[in-house]
Amino acid sequence: MKFGGTSVADIERIKNVARRVQREVESGNQVAVVVSAMSGVTNQLVAWVNQLSPLHDAREYDTVVATGEQVTSGLLAVALQEMGVNARSWQGWQIPLQSDGVHGKARIQRIDKTELDRRLTDGQVAVVAGFQGIGPDNRITTLGRGGSDTSAVALAAALNADRCDIYTDVDGVYTCDPRLVTKARKLAKITYEEMLEMASLGAKVLQTRSVEMAMNHRVRVQVLSSFSDAPGTLVVDEDEIVEKEVVSGIAYSRDEAKITLTRVADKPGVAAAIFGPLADASINVDMIVQNVSEDGRTTDMTFTVTRADLQRAVKVLRDAGKKLGFEEIKPDANVVKVSVIGVGMRSHAGVALTMFRTLAEKGINIEVISTSEIKISVLIDEQYLELALRALHTAYGLDAA
Amino acid sequence: MKFGGTSVADIERIKNVARRVQREVESGNQVAVVVSAMSGVTNQLVAWVNQLSPLHDAREYDTVVATGEQVTSGLLAVALQEMGVNARSWQGWQIPLQSDGVHGKARIQRIDKTELDRRLTDGQVAVVAGFQGIGPDNRITTLGRGGSDTSAVALAAALNADRCDIYTDVDGVYTCDPRLVTKARKLAKITYEEMLEMASLGAKVLQTRSVEMAMNHRVRVQVLSSFSDAPGTLVVDEDEIVEKEVVSGIAYSRDEAKITLTRVADKPGVAAAIFGPLADASINVDMIVQNVSEDGRTTDMTFTVTRADLQRAVKVLRDAGKKLGFEEIKPDANVVKVSVIGVGMRSHAGVALTMFRTLAEKGINIEVISTSEIKISVLIDEQYLELALRALHTAYGLDAA
Repeated sequence: MKFGGTSVADIERIKNVARRVQREVESGNQVAVVVSAMSGVTNQLVAWVNQLSPLHDAREYDTVVATGEQVTSGLLAVALQEMGVNARSWQGWQIPLQSDGVHGKARIQRIDKTELDRRLTDGQVAVVAGFQGIGPDNRITTLGRGGSDTSAVALAAALNADRCDIYTDVDGVYTCDPRLVTKARKLAKITYEEMLEMASLGAKVLQTRSVEMAMNHRVRVQVLSSFSDAPGTLVVDEDEIVEKEVVSGIAYSRDEAKITLTRVADKPGVAAAIFGPLADASINVDMIVQNVSEDGRTTDMTFTVTRADLQRAVKVLRDAGKKLGFEEIKPDANVVKVSVIGVGMRSHAGVALTMFRTLAEKGINIEVISTSEIKISVLIDEQYLELALRALHTAYGLDAA
Repeated sequence: MKFGGTSVADIERIKNVARRVQREVESGNQVAVVVSAMSGVTNQLVAWVNQLSPLHDAREYDTVVATGEQVTSGLLAVALQEMGVNARSWQGWQIPLQSDGVHGKARIQRIDKTELDRRLTDGQVAVVAGFQGIGPDNRITTLGRGGSDTSAVALAAALNADRCDIYTDVDGVYTCDPRLVTKARKLAKITYEEMLEMASLGAKVLQTRSVEMAMNHRVRVQVLSSFSDAPGTLVVDEDEIVEKEVVSGIAYSRDEAKITLTRVADKPGVAAAIFGPLADASINVDMIVQNVSEDGRTTDMTFTVTRADLQRAVKVLRDAGKKLGFEEIKPDANVVKVSVIGVGMRSHAGVALTMFRTLAEKGINIEVISTSEIKISVLIDEQYLELALRALHTAYGLDAA
């Protein structure tokens, strides 16, 4: 069981979490619980570190921010004991949960489950501080923001858990964001691959890395709410889903910005000349379109970056301008990415056509297209976001009855 | 250098502390720093634990409350690095600072100084989280409230430090509380024994246990303010003080309550019959007076407990009443203890006489007296506290010029 920050936001909610754990124990399950910091705590700690030094030692950052989860783990253990449930807290260094030495965004390398296993067998609940491990330097590491999901999946894998239940403030994975599409339905099951696309496209239910890890270790993950008793969404292997939908869900991301370079010389090496300097500046480029050259000598090049990187990307390109040789830079932050996702696409033609036709009928212009085996993404003007989502949701037959 | 909670209360104060540490480093000193939690943090953490369970697992309590110091240690390390000072944070388990397994009030058993020593020699400042160690169970222990002073003295002893500077919100040890006696003077030096009496009598400058430890290991402790550059008070061996004052200081405690049992049977075993039940109830008795028996058969017995224990003590005695056989219980919470302290008393007669005469001249009745080798304490009515302190301060020649 993993509980996020809003689920443990205060003492009453920690008691609520304890009651859920107690219920699992009373059902005869062996339970390990992974907890996040109480909501708001990590932000405060990060702010303090940044106030002292924007370019801080990541080892000290880890020492400071890992305390949030340490507090919650101790408090939940106390709450469980108070209910008569045998429990104890575990910090990353106590298990030990060994990570590499990349402080601030460490990767888990090995979990020594000997002691945990022994105590679980004895009926003791392990309350594990999420988000943290211990590095080869014997110092606390953290796994990057949202890392408690990864802790939970890694622990579930190490312990050969039957299930990894991720409790959060939503009650599952929906066909689309219910705040924008009222007809969105909760999915009973979704495949790892689809969940991975959803997560990386901005559906902030699970951290991308945790889904990758679940997929690699075949951990059955359930996403469910800590505030209701409704069944959640199971993230499982494709074989487990008998009736596959062609499209399982529609995701979107507002964190997109478009840059167009006009009249770029259309010659070999020009893409490298553009994207090299951006990569050097650690700016990730997502979608890329190179227009067909009209005059045979120049072309327009369009690509997307995150909104936070837009100004910096424009500056980098301007600085590289002379060598590149283009006419104009046109930045545009008013774009969104909309993606339809489904493993069924592999065997069904016409999915893309439905998307293009639906958007065209609503008069929505597609600015950039990119596809993968189980996903089609388009970049559109931000003002059409809700319209596009609702139209596509209906077109793919996803609307709730 | 040890900095208490008010000295590291916010980011600006942590920067201020970093500047003080930098100054010591630039003077050519090797520096280890012990830090408390930011003020208020420990109280919040303790409150959360108590909210969940008044009778909580002390191991989980330690896990939770030790985070306060962990945060400060990381933040101070970052602040120092930002100033170009080589520094790193250390948690109890990393050093390791080994304690016994008495969670919540552990005692330090061994400090492995190998790694600290090596890095201090290399010019790295060690920023050590105070108040915490690691127990034989590989879990975090805490040393009891105010334990960071003890951490600092123990570390100074282990590292053979030239000095242990305790930075606090007062700038030294005074002949009397300056809030009550405006003519109080700051002492340049005070002996361990005197400091111990001062500390245990309520002068809340240093934790009693840390003074005991300093005395046992002959650690030169300096008490000084983190908010001014005034020299502090050195706590040292008696040999270091050439001109000993007969009386070094006057301490007081408001945390006193008096109980008188009238007409107690004056026979062997009666003291045990009274104090046995109190000890069983974990109620500490401080001063005790047994009046001379007038009728040869009964006597009055007076003693003091802390104010917090008064109601409980009365109840315990009433319950034991039949076996004890006394006439009446007279509780009184309106009393204070005033003590004059000085190693010079050992060689000077008349110190007690001065005290009794001075109080008598002011019309202040002494209710109970107790003495030790370097201290005379009297219990008086609380309304005379300031009057008594000022009169004694003058009588012993302690007034500032």
